[in-house]
Amino acid sequence: MKDDRLDAVAGNGLLDRRLFLRGGLAGGTLLLATAANGVEREKWMKAPGAPMDELGEPSVHEAHVKRTSVRSSPGTTGTGVSFTPHEHLDGIITPSRLHFERHHNGIPDVDPAQHRLIIHGLVERPLSFDLDALARYPKVSRINFLECSGNSGACLAPEPVQAPLSAIHGLVAASEWGGVPLAVLLDEVGVKPTAKWIVADGADAPLMSRSVPLDKAMDDAIVALYQNGERLRPSNGYPMRLFLPGWEGNMSVKWLRTIKVTDQPAMTKDETSKYSDLQSDGSARLFTYPMGVKSVITSPSHGMSLGPAGIYQVSGIAWSGSGRIVRVDVSVDGGRSWAEAALDSHVLPKSLTRFRSAWRWDGSPSVIMSRAIDEQGNVQPTRQKILENRSSGFFYHYNGIQAWQVAAGGEVTHVYA
Amino acid sequence: MKDDRLDAVAGNGLLDRRLFLRGGLAGGTLLLATAANGVEREKWMKAPGAPMDELGEPSVHEAHVKRTSVRSSPGTTGTGVSFTPHEHLDGIITPSRLHFERHHNGIPDVDPAQHRLIIHGLVERPLSFDLDALARYPKVSRINFLECSGNSGACLAPEPVQAPLSAIHGLVAASEWGGVPLAVLLDEVGVKPTAKWIVADGADAPLMSRSVPLDKAMDDAIVALYQNGERLRPSNGYPMRLFLPGWEGNMSVKWLRTIKVTDQPAMTKDETSKYSDLQSDGSARLFTYPMGVKSVITSPSHGMSLGPAGIYQVSGIAWSGSGRIVRVDVSVDGGRSWAEAALDSHVLPKSLTRFRSAWRWDGSPSVIMSRAIDEQGNVQPTRQKILENRSSGFFYHYNGIQAWQVAAGGEVTHVYA
Repeated sequence: MKDDRLDAVAGNGLLDRRLFLRGGLAGGTLLLATAANGVEREKWMKAPGAPMDELGEPSVHEAHVKRTSVRSSPGTTGTGVSFTPHEHLDGIITPSRLHFERHHNGIPDVDPAQHRLIIHGLVERPLSFDLDALARYPKVSRINFLECSGNSGACLAPEPVQAPLSAIHGLVAASEWGGVPLAVLLDEVGVKPTAKWIVADGADAPLMSRSVPLDKAMDDAIVALYQNGERLRPSNGYPMRLFLPGWEGNMSVKWLRTIKVTDQPAMTKDETSKYSDLQSDGSARLFTYPMGVKSVITSPSHGMSLGPAGIYQVSGIAWSGSGRIVRVDVSVDGGRSWAEAALDSHVLPKSLTRFRSAWRWDGSPSVIMSRAIDEQGNVQPTRQKILENRSSGFFYHYNGIQAWQVAAGGEVTHVYA
Repeated sequence: MKDDRLDAVAGNGLLDRRLFLRGGLAGGTLLLATAANGVEREKWMKAPGAPMDELGEPSVHEAHVKRTSVRSSPGTTGTGVSFTPHEHLDGIITPSRLHFERHHNGIPDVDPAQHRLIIHGLVERPLSFDLDALARYPKVSRINFLECSGNSGACLAPEPVQAPLSAIHGLVAASEWGGVPLAVLLDEVGVKPTAKWIVADGADAPLMSRSVPLDKAMDDAIVALYQNGERLRPSNGYPMRLFLPGWEGNMSVKWLRTIKVTDQPAMTKDETSKYSDLQSDGSARLFTYPMGVKSVITSPSHGMSLGPAGIYQVSGIAWSGSGRIVRVDVSVDGGRSWAEAALDSHVLPKSLTRFRSAWRWDGSPSVIMSRAIDEQGNVQPTRQKILENRSSGFFYHYNGIQAWQVAAGGEVTHVYA
């Protein structure tokens, strides 16, 4: 008997997103319980378990779920990146201990009792805030992604890098960020009419320093104190960082120490020699802020292996610096046909959105990919389209469609498609 | 000059929720930066910071943020509770390592490779699912609170317990929970028409066992595999637990091992000798599922101390097992007058909602409290109202209004009001 629910809605077996697979569709992987009532108790049911503890730690069986790091400057220990292992994660929240990092000279050990945030420059009253002072101000919290503008730059390589998803796309994560709206503090110091920018400096040794337009500072920027309910962790800016929802991660200056209100950008090393986009005519485009609309399939992805032909769940994350994700399309035939994926219920602005598609894999070689669209109508571009429009020295802000190849044997590898 | 924004909207200095405090309102706690440009660099800015690591750990300065445990059965190590330290947290997500726990005989060390979920009873096809099999099914994720039905039972004591908030209300937390909808698995095994209940058993030594109406199992119940993006931690049911949004925590059976589909509840020890509500006539009310509408001010709360008179931020969490929170009122005059609090932007169903009110404290003794209302129109009751309606043996499901007293010196203590 034919089951209409199994009709593909796109090429190569992609199933309808409204199909909540029910009844026998994945039965091939199940075991019949012949005597469910009489199953022998496992050894861990025969003795008292471990006592309670002050902190609930992950399972020893999950010890492989950790970040990998790459040091980018020989001779230093604290310059480089560590990647969020999205190939092992699900949902839209990233555990704080697995949040990606990008450091330019290590993680400073800031004493919260000594730390001050100073706001000065084109203001009526330059002020210094300690943590107790900040506690007097209203706070907000919301879930937002943070992405390094160098994320996915590996996809500019001439040949597809054969590496786990995290090594390619692991410089994005999402947390609940909580703190004081920067607008509140700027009103407190009294911004002068000639002000147009702020310049934010960190308390790290290399003195990370970025210029931010005043409009953004007065919009949704916060001085973040909390991440996922608890105080920031040192590697993410403890005791406070600037947080600019949707904008390139580097601008969300960690260990935030001074904000200078100015009438022009400061043209710091971190926005000229780095984090600028080289154009074909040799000029550099500066100040490219919102991260583009993007998505990536996290499972299956490079290094995984499918089992026998049958039903599989394709899942991934999508995000946009311009607002909400409104749709994610998935293709399992290398982009020849697409079908709309289901989105998990929390589709929040400037946040990760989890998408899912069911796929009836017939065991033949397949190329799978996803394409996100945001509420501004931005559509995630192909890699080819991106290459056509940038010079060879333009590294940052890569948001092209990611393709994974599933071989006949089930092995998943990175391909360009 | 009079500042209208400082007009109180309720007794004793409570300010309007739409007032986003701007300009000079908390200036008394600020320091003038006389030479912001010339501030000496702190010692952590003069040397490279710590290298990157596989895991990002909390600051050593936050080591006091941990759970406290109470063992409830002498002679055992794994029977009791550990409390989420909400007095140190903000936002609506609880870090997994700080999620509360309630154990009846410790935390089993379940081997995920050996673990199976068996669904049997009144079904067409009893089936056994290992983790690989479950991965073939569609998943969902969403943010929900989990609350032990014994949470806040300390408020039934004749005199107010003088203890930190967490020791009174620390058996609630919120996470993003991800997994396979139980309805999908029940359809897979084929539930027979006579079925009305399921009975879920855990793989712990005491064999936690609870009966759940089939309607709930087919509604929003999931077999949870992920918590806040990563696999469940052992103390929260690794590798899988039942999760029933909004219902008493004990029913979300950890280390889920068997589900038996039945035509009646099993009347297990965990739903008769415990987790039942003794009535005045000596009978016990069984199967009271959704957690009531509730809120608590987390800051300021017992053990904290306000500084000098001035502007303070009152903040807390609200939740309801019946859906979304639609309003939280705050009083700073012991309930004589109330004003609506601001809610953080993510107000999600069956989740924690963060509320905030600004308060101009004049330095006089004050009693502060909060009252939540959910989308079903349920209003959080007073302690007095609860006491009028229950017998002395009725311990669970306490959701009364919590009051904290602020003394003239600023010390905050637990009071009944």
